Amino acid sequence: MEQLEIKKYIRDVKDFPKVGVTFKDISPLLGCPVAFRAAIEYVALAWGGRIDAIAALDARGFIFGGALAYATDLPLQPVRKKGKLPGSVFKETYSLEYDHGTLELQVDAFGAGQRVLIIDDVLATGGTARAACELVRLTAAKVAGCAFVIELAALRGRRVLEEYDVTSLITYP
Amino acid sequence: MEQLEIKKYIRDVKDFPKVGVTFKDISPLLGCPVAFRAAIEYVALAWGGRIDAIAALDARGFIFGGALAYATDLPLQPVRKKGKLPGSVFKETYSLEYDHGTLELQVDAFGAGQRVLIIDDVLATGGTARAACELVRLTAAKVAGCAFVIELAALRGRRVLEEYDVTSLITYP
Repeated sequence: MEQLEIKKYIRDVKDFPKVGVTFKDISPLLGCPVAFRAAIEYVALAWGGRIDAIAALDARGFIFGGALAYATDLPLQPVRKKGKLPGSVFKETYSLEYDHGTLELQVDAFGAGQRVLIIDDVLATGGTARAACELVRLTAAKVAGCAFVIELAALRGRRVLEEYDVTSLITYP
Repeated sequence: MEQLEIKKYIRDVKDFPKVGVTFKDISPLLGCPVAFRAAIEYVALAWGGRIDAIAALDARGFIFGGALAYATDLPLQPVRKKGKLPGSVFKETYSLEYDHGTLELQVDAFGAGQRVLIIDDVLATGGTARAACELVRLTAAKVAGCAFVIELAALRGRRVLEEYDVTSLITYP
């Protein structure tokens, strides 16, 4: 499957989560094993050999992160919303399109110098991904970059992440 | 890796999320690619050939569900907490050890008669898994069963799920 064909498996849902917003629904992609496999393999291809570990963002990033960790045989750690991770955690606040809050990462999630890829389904304003980058840096690991399935270019998330390498499989203007 | 060895990668964290509760932390399992792969392959082995699709529970179930969908080439759909899924959804309320709320599943998540496996990281009281089973049945698909990485037997979740086939990789008394 060609990379652009993956776009056929993203469904527009108008006025979700609020009036005036068109939500990119990934359910058809998850429901098509060929398309889901292609998405994971494109990310693996883009980043393979350049990363030592994966940080997946709560919650849809977990779906892609879990599959990517399995496909690449790399360690995975979750970046979670406040209060979900046990033990000692680093905390970072963020703001984003529909929400704001605090993200957490366990202090021993990654080893010093490990090259960590942050993965999530959608790059919107970049707020959560940027907070995740900060968290990874607090562990003394390095941010190799950020991978997204979908990029909403109008929200300019790349600008917020300009110091990092960013890839996305599908871009909407 | 033998199934029982996976237990070495589950870390006890005392007094989380509240005093008196010992939390089973899956981070070491996620951080060890050999153990994570073994866990996914044990689930695939237990259910392969008996299921047509996977329903992963929000949020840690997404990690295992994503990897299992990739490993088995089966379609995946997320069962999510209230307000997260776009489009038309079925709703089901649940109560569990630390929380209560509403789970949702898109009405077109599965086809009629599809055999669906529900996957989550931990079987505790069984409240969320039972609600997920009800949601799958509302779509006219069939519940093939429920797979968990960890089972906390003392909380008797199996009793709540007694009409379903249940597997777990690791059981704590």
